[in-house]
Amino acid sequence: MANKVIHALEEIDAPRLTAIDIRALGDEINPEHLEISSEHAGTYTTMVKLEIVCTKEDVKKTIDTILKNARTGYKGDGIVIISPVEKVVNIRTGEMEDF
Amino acid sequence: MANKVIHALEEIDAPRLTAIDIRALGDEINPEHLEISSEHAGTYTTMVKLEIVCTKEDVKKTIDTILKNARTGYKGDGIVIISPVEKVVNIRTGEMEDF
Amino acid sequence: MANKVIHALEEIDAPRLTAIDIRALGDEINPEHLEISSEHAGTYTTMVKLEIVCTKEDVKKTIDTILKNARTGYKGDGIVIISPVEKVVNIRTGEMEDF
Repeated sequence: MANKVIHALEEIDAPRLTAIDIRALGDEINPEHLEISSEHAGTYTTMVKLEIVCTKEDVKKTIDTILKNARTGYKGDGIVIISPVEKVVNIRTGEMEDF
Repeated sequence: MANKVIHALEEIDAPRLTAIDIRALGDEINPEHLEISSEHAGTYTTMVKLEIVCTKEDVKKTIDTILKNARTGYKGDGIVIISPVEKVVNIRTGEMEDF
Repeated sequence: MANKVIHALEEIDAPRLTAIDIRALGDEINPEHLEISSEHAGTYTTMVKLEIVCTKEDVKKTIDTILKNARTGYKGDGIVIISPVEKVVNIRTGEMEDF
């Protein structure tokens, strides 16, 4: 699943794309992929969280690409969270961009 | 520990709850659960970071629930970070909510 | 690499420092440390993401420390993302700080 979304994001040149393993709890659980953990209060689903840093202009295109490629129509499809970013500094060049 | 907090958050219907494994460094280290790593500059503590996306109205209730259930009184109890979210898109329905 | 940056951040007393394992995809991949995954659409690089919560006054000092210690000059050095934080609550003391 993540595979398809990542390919689609790479095709629109989504920059600064990273993936993190997370466990979805509560109402985010996909009932078809339940796992059980005593540490995490019963059931959870292993998911991949993608983080993308893009300009304001590219937000709509990025959301559309995710919706088109991540939607299965079942519970557990997850959400897209849009959070503000103030600046990004490129470590190699030292260049700072305002957002 | 995370177990107790997650159960309490599920009881107040905290939505969009996910857990991520992290390593606490520096002054966040719990001295009773020290681990040693050459990669991470000496000592660290394995912790679980919970991410919750909620409405402004539910921020106080959510913080109170975390404080009540996560506090041991010892160093390493951690922090709650409140960051702004602009929008959330439900991938299954395509519905967008402003925050 | 993370080791050097973490040591330098501890020397300037960077507070609330945590590390998370992530996979860099797309144009963030370091070509010298390629890994291959069928799940993640081909190639990726394993990286460590450091999260630091600091006051506005300490942002510049923190960025400078990261740039000075994380830069190799090669692709894959990564980025520093500056995002707003509204409040931080210390779970042990219940003390809330505005940012």
